[in-house]
Amino acid sequence: MAIVTFTTDFGTQDGYVAAMKGVLLQSAPDATLVDITHDVAGHDVVAAAFALAQAAPYFPARSIHVVVVDPGVGGQRRPIVLDDGKQIFVGPDNGVLTLAAAAPYTGVWAIENTGFLADSPSSTFHGRDVFAVCAGRLAAGAEPNEVGPRVELQGALPLQGGHRRDGDSQFARVLHVDRFGNLITDVRGDELPAAPRLHARGERIIGLSETYESVAKGALLAYIGSGGTLEIAVREGRACDELDMRRGDAIEIVRTPEA
Amino acid sequence: MAIVTFTTDFGTQDGYVAAMKGVLLQSAPDATLVDITHDVAGHDVVAAAFALAQAAPYFPARSIHVVVVDPGVGGQRRPIVLDDGKQIFVGPDNGVLTLAAAAPYTGVWAIENTGFLADSPSSTFHGRDVFAVCAGRLAAGAEPNEVGPRVELQGALPLQGGHRRDGDSQFARVLHVDRFGNLITDVRGDELPAAPRLHARGERIIGLSETYESVAKGALLAYIGSGGTLEIAVREGRACDELDMRRGDAIEIVRTPEA
Amino acid sequence: MAIVTFTTDFGTQDGYVAAMKGVLLQSAPDATLVDITHDVAGHDVVAAAFALAQAAPYFPARSIHVVVVDPGVGGQRRPIVLDDGKQIFVGPDNGVLTLAAAAPYTGVWAIENTGFLADSPSSTFHGRDVFAVCAGRLAAGAEPNEVGPRVELQGALPLQGGHRRDGDSQFARVLHVDRFGNLITDVRGDELPAAPRLHARGERIIGLSETYESVAKGALLAYIGSGGTLEIAVREGRACDELDMRRGDAIEIVRTPEA
Repeated sequence: MAIVTFTTDFGTQDGYVAAMKGVLLQSAPDATLVDITHDVAGHDVVAAAFALAQAAPYFPARSIHVVVVDPGVGGQRRPIVLDDGKQIFVGPDNGVLTLAAAAPYTGVWAIENTGFLADSPSSTFHGRDVFAVCAGRLAAGAEPNEVGPRVELQGALPLQGGHRRDGDSQFARVLHVDRFGNLITDVRGDELPAAPRLHARGERIIGLSETYESVAKGALLAYIGSGGTLEIAVREGRACDELDMRRGDAIEIVRTPEA
Repeated sequence: MAIVTFTTDFGTQDGYVAAMKGVLLQSAPDATLVDITHDVAGHDVVAAAFALAQAAPYFPARSIHVVVVDPGVGGQRRPIVLDDGKQIFVGPDNGVLTLAAAAPYTGVWAIENTGFLADSPSSTFHGRDVFAVCAGRLAAGAEPNEVGPRVELQGALPLQGGHRRDGDSQFARVLHVDRFGNLITDVRGDELPAAPRLHARGERIIGLSETYESVAKGALLAYIGSGGTLEIAVREGRACDELDMRRGDAIEIVRTPEA
Repeated sequence: MAIVTFTTDFGTQDGYVAAMKGVLLQSAPDATLVDITHDVAGHDVVAAAFALAQAAPYFPARSIHVVVVDPGVGGQRRPIVLDDGKQIFVGPDNGVLTLAAAAPYTGVWAIENTGFLADSPSSTFHGRDVFAVCAGRLAAGAEPNEVGPRVELQGALPLQGGHRRDGDSQFARVLHVDRFGNLITDVRGDELPAAPRLHARGERIIGLSETYESVAKGALLAYIGSGGTLEIAVREGRACDELDMRRGDAIEIVRTPEA
């Protein structure tokens, strides 16, 4: 029984997400449907990519992940299926799949073949008329290479470089601010010095904590988060407000022992 | 395996929706459950009717659509089952089903019979004690005509008339503002002249666009939306704010060629 | 086929909830997944306990209810499985399960055994690495007493006493304000006098109504709600705003007949 997840910026007030699920169930009535999120800000491809990457790796092999966050709907970007050997992704070729899918990919295919999109797809709702139709066919047993010609991935996320080093310092970048106001960065635990000193907006954090309860209520802490990267939080508070930081901001990591 | 959708104004903070699903699963433990929306404004029957109409037609035949948006809960309006030959609807007889269900109906029945509502239904939570019980029985195989006596549909949506014509102009009415701020009207594509000129709050839109990308960022565009009717949007913006328009407002469609 | 519900304070913008579901589906790919709520305020154990209690009793026997609302994640409180003979609860031992689970319990067990938590659980995401793993195993057929040693329940909700009496008056406490602004109290219908006179913030409500339509639009009413306890509402309005009342506030119930 196929498992299909959904990630969109459609919100939950309209019938758009359910229309996609209805279309999918027409091809695959026994599919298990799971929402990842529909509440990323409109057209926020990075936030959608991040939410997908938080969740997709934990699904059973060959789960199908449908993503529709797409400023260019109806425009030039291609609808694709990406298979990374573990999971199958269905969405626009705008980079939104690239944080979750693990390179090297088994293959990328453009969705073009009859039967994998509606007969007369609307130009504004590819979620329903292209992506859901295609995902439904995959959920019913079709293979990714049946959807259309093999292509190269073109889209990239609008994220500048990774974190960088500068002398004795390295700089982590905030990739995401989660619901709790925690700052999630792009520096993996194994890239950090043993007892890092962090500077964020003039505040200093010394060392890594194991749990939120390691510090007093309201205090800042740094730790390796559940995604394996450096995070900054305030116990029972909101680090993003406390530090006035948001996605893209930098945190300095001083690598030398304190004098 | 039955498919059951849910449309309510219960929000997602309380346990009300899940209580309905629990009741339904007692009768039909194998049902596939899909949320349409629980986030329409409290008692907003028109918004609920619209969301349902966006989604229901895309579901497999004989899906069961439960709707609980009902200012008059416990009052005089009847709980009904409506079968339009394609889909089955379960909800209050207040008009909320009438945008989604396609007339002529196969039948409408009042939910009155033992076994299709709780033994002692509460007077304030018919969603759980009437509609979910009834939908659960239908999902388990009961037929609509078993729920109670056949009746005539009484409820109507609080929507004045359709769009109207006045000399060389016709007027579209905004039926819905979606999450993206797009204005969805009640004029179907086949009711429009070939190259319509639209006047909305003093702004002019000439012709129909195929995709959002047909215009510059921030520009207004008109197009036939995914529901088949005229819509107004701002590319990567919010038309409702740009034009200060909301549900019920009119857009003038000038039918004569420009002088 | 197991039924599993989810109650968290994770919100719906991130991929956290879906990661939990993915983990669960790895053990129990056929499970039916139902959300109770993910929208309680961060760390609001009482609100989560209340939403769970509104919904859990209506689920089929042996449904599994996973709750992750936990200010002390990674700290000293134990992850537990609680079986009340009807339903199975999986969550932290912080009182969040105690409104929904019906004492006396069949048993409470600490989640400690290999296979019921991830091999290397993160210290900050027990929802994914402990609770979802354990619930997945239970959904796949494991018994509660396999998860670890039997323990005594320790956690309690931060709620002072129940309602109290004082001479001819008794005082109901507001346990919850729902989405509609209705005030839900802790006084059961059978604890009330026949025609109670209620005093709330200087407003008086005489007697109990059967339905919202028993009073004029905008008027206050008292009634026995769908959970069996005294509630205060404003017809098509918000009682919490009208009365400026919130959780923990008291409503006086005068037991003597009016002079």
